[in-house]
Amino acid sequence: MNDEIKNIKKIIINSSFELDCGKTIKNFPLAYETYGTLNKSKNNAVFAFHALTGDQFVTNVNPITKREGWWTTAVGPGKAIDTNKYFVICSNVLGGCMGSFGPREINPETNKVYGTTFPVITIRDMVRAQKYLLDHLGIKKLLAVTGGSMGGMQVLQFTSLYPDKTHSAIPIACSASHSAQNIALNELGRQAIMTDPNWKKENSTPDKGLAIARMAAHITYLSKQGLQEKFGRKLQDKGSLKFGFDADFQIESYLRHQGATFVDRFDANSYLYITRAMDYFDLEKQFNGNLSLAFKNTKSKFCVISFSSDWLYPTIENKEIVIALNACGANVGFVEINSDKGHDSFLLDVPEFLKTISEFLNSTYNEINNNEKRI
Amino acid sequence: MNDEIKNIKKIIINSSFELDCGKTIKNFPLAYETYGTLNKSKNNAVFAFHALTGDQFVTNVNPITKREGWWTTAVGPGKAIDTNKYFVICSNVLGGCMGSFGPREINPETNKVYGTTFPVITIRDMVRAQKYLLDHLGIKKLLAVTGGSMGGMQVLQFTSLYPDKTHSAIPIACSASHSAQNIALNELGRQAIMTDPNWKKENSTPDKGLAIARMAAHITYLSKQGLQEKFGRKLQDKGSLKFGFDADFQIESYLRHQGATFVDRFDANSYLYITRAMDYFDLEKQFNGNLSLAFKNTKSKFCVISFSSDWLYPTIENKEIVIALNACGANVGFVEINSDKGHDSFLLDVPEFLKTISEFLNSTYNEINNNEKRI
Repeated sequence: MNDEIKNIKKIIINSSFELDCGKTIKNFPLAYETYGTLNKSKNNAVFAFHALTGDQFVTNVNPITKREGWWTTAVGPGKAIDTNKYFVICSNVLGGCMGSFGPREINPETNKVYGTTFPVITIRDMVRAQKYLLDHLGIKKLLAVTGGSMGGMQVLQFTSLYPDKTHSAIPIACSASHSAQNIALNELGRQAIMTDPNWKKENSTPDKGLAIARMAAHITYLSKQGLQEKFGRKLQDKGSLKFGFDADFQIESYLRHQGATFVDRFDANSYLYITRAMDYFDLEKQFNGNLSLAFKNTKSKFCVISFSSDWLYPTIENKEIVIALNACGANVGFVEINSDKGHDSFLLDVPEFLKTISEFLNSTYNEINNNEKRI
Repeated sequence: MNDEIKNIKKIIINSSFELDCGKTIKNFPLAYETYGTLNKSKNNAVFAFHALTGDQFVTNVNPITKREGWWTTAVGPGKAIDTNKYFVICSNVLGGCMGSFGPREINPETNKVYGTTFPVITIRDMVRAQKYLLDHLGIKKLLAVTGGSMGGMQVLQFTSLYPDKTHSAIPIACSASHSAQNIALNELGRQAIMTDPNWKKENSTPDKGLAIARMAAHITYLSKQGLQEKFGRKLQDKGSLKFGFDADFQIESYLRHQGATFVDRFDANSYLYITRAMDYFDLEKQFNGNLSLAFKNTKSKFCVISFSSDWLYPTIENKEIVIALNACGANVGFVEINSDKGHDSFLLDVPEFLKTISEFLNSTYNEINNNEKRI
C-alpha cells in the first residue's frame, strides 16, 4: 500500500512552514484529489475537508483502499455537490496517512518513518497547508468550503483565517471546540493504541489497540435509536445464546468487523495525531474567548447543519457557531436535519440534508454569476 | 487481597444449582454483608443489589479495598435507607470477585483459578443464588428490593421470580433488557480485555485492557453536560498545551486515573462474565415477548426511578418497565429525577432522589406495620 501511495497526486510545499507547536517544517507533501472541471472564471470550486479517518478520495473508488470514497452520497455527477457543475477539491490532512506529511512518512534525516517523532499538528496547521494547494491550483476564491465533523472544524478555521477566500461555508455536524466528552472519547482511543505492546515497536503495528479505538469511535458515530433499529438484540446465529464470549449478538460481530477492517487502511499514529488536533481545536480560545471575533472579517455566507440524533456534536454545539456568526453580523442560515442515524448522518443518504447542501450551493453559485454578469 | 477475601462473611450453597447455561454447580460460596438490625417481626429487611463493579460492601469502609462502600450516599444511620431502622443486606453477585463464586475462585478439581473455565452466568442465576441467602437469614418477606443499573435488573428479576417475597421494589436507572448500544459498549470493554496479550496468561493479568474497559465505561456513566461542567477544557497544568500525548486536559488525567485504580480492585474475568450477564438479560424474552407477564403475579408495590441525563439507561427504557407494570395492574409509581450527573446519579448525593427512596420505604414500612397491628 505504501508504494501505491507514493504515486498519488500531491504538491510539495517548499516554504518554511511554522507549525503551531513551534517546529518548522519544509519540503513536505500534501496529497490531494480533484473531481469535475474548474470553469474559466475559476468560481466553481468547492473545497471539501475530510474527517478523522477520511482522505482526499471523496467519491468514486479510492484507488488505494479499493473502497468507495467517503462522501459518494454527496459528491458526484448529478449529486448534491454536482461534479458536472462544481470542481471539488479535497486534500489529505497534515498528519494523515494517505500521502500527506504524516507520521507514516519517511523522515529524510533518519531514513525511518517518523512515527511518534512526528510533530503534533493542529487544525490550523492543516488548514494553512491546504491554502498552499488553493494557490497551486490558481483559485483566488472558492465557491464553498464544506465538511462534516473534523471537516467542519476545518471549515470554521478556514473562514476565520481567510475571510475573503470563499463565497460560502457549510460546516456540518461539528463544533468550535471539543467538549470534555469528546476529548474523553478520543483519549480512550489513544490509550487503547498507546497501551498496545506493539505500539512503537519496530516492524509491528498496534492493530489491536487501533481496532479498539475504532470500535469505541464507531459507537459514537451512531445514535442509540439507530443502533436499536438496525441491530436491537438480534443474534448472529438465529439459534439461541451460546453462553460464551464469541459474538452472540449481531452488534458485536459488526463492531469487531469495523475494528478489524480499519487497521488495514489506517495508521495508528495518524489516529493519535489527528485526534490530538481535534482535541486541541478551540476557535474561541484563538480569539481570547470571543468566538464571534473569529468571524468578524468574514464575507462568506454560512449554512450550518446539524443532525437531531448526533450526540457527539449535538445541535446545541452547532448552534453556538450560529450564535457567534449572528453576533458579528454574518449571513448565516441554520438547519437541524431530522435523522436517527447519529453523527454518521453526514456520510449517509439523508435526502433533506443533501437537498439543503444542493440548494445552498446552487443559490450561492447563481448569486455569484448573476453579480458577475451584472458587473 | 485474596487471603483477606477468604475470611469475609459468606454462605456455602450446598444444593445442586442448575445455571441457565445448563451446567450444574454445588458447594459454592456467596459472600454478603448486612447493616443494621433485623427486627423481631423480620419485616424491616431491604435487599440492595449491586451494579457491575460493586460488591457486598454497600456502606462504611470496604474492608478489602479500604474505599468507601458504593452506596454510602444512600445507606447508613439516618440516611435514605436508614440502617437505624432497616436491616440492609447485600451479596456479591455470582461471577463477582469479592468472595462469591466467580472466575477468580479456585476450582477444587484442578486447584487452579477458574478464569475462563468459569461457566457463563445470568442475572437470573445471580438472583436465584441470592434467594438462598434470604432463606439462610430466615427472612420470609423483604420490605424492599432495590438497586441501580445491573442492581435494578436484579430487582426486576427478583420480583418476577419471587412475586410474594418482597413488599416493595425500587428499580433504579435500569432496563428490562440491554439495548444494542449497551451491548456494544460492553463488547468494547470485553474486546479491550480479551485482546490484551496478558489475558489468559499464567501469572499475569490484562491490566491494560481492563483499564481501557473501565475508561470506556466511566465515560458512559457521566453525562455530556456533567463532564462539561466538571472538566470542560481545563488543562492539567495551568500553563499551555504541551503538544504531546501526555495528559494535557484534566479529563484525560481523570480517565487515566479511573482506569489505573480500577485494576487494583477488580478481576478482568469477572468484568467479562458480569457484562455478559447484563447483555444476556432480557426479561421480556423470558416471557415470550410480553414484559407485563413477568410481573403478573406480583404483590409488590413499585417505585421506578430514572435520571434525566442518564443516556445509558434513559428514562424511556425505565418507562417501559412502568408500562409493563401498569399493564398487569401492579401498584407502580414513577419518578424521573432531574440531574445532570448522568447514570452515576444513583450513586451520588442527589437530594430529590434520596428523598424519593426514603419516603417510599417509609410509607411501605408504615403500611405493613399498620396492617400487622390491625390484624
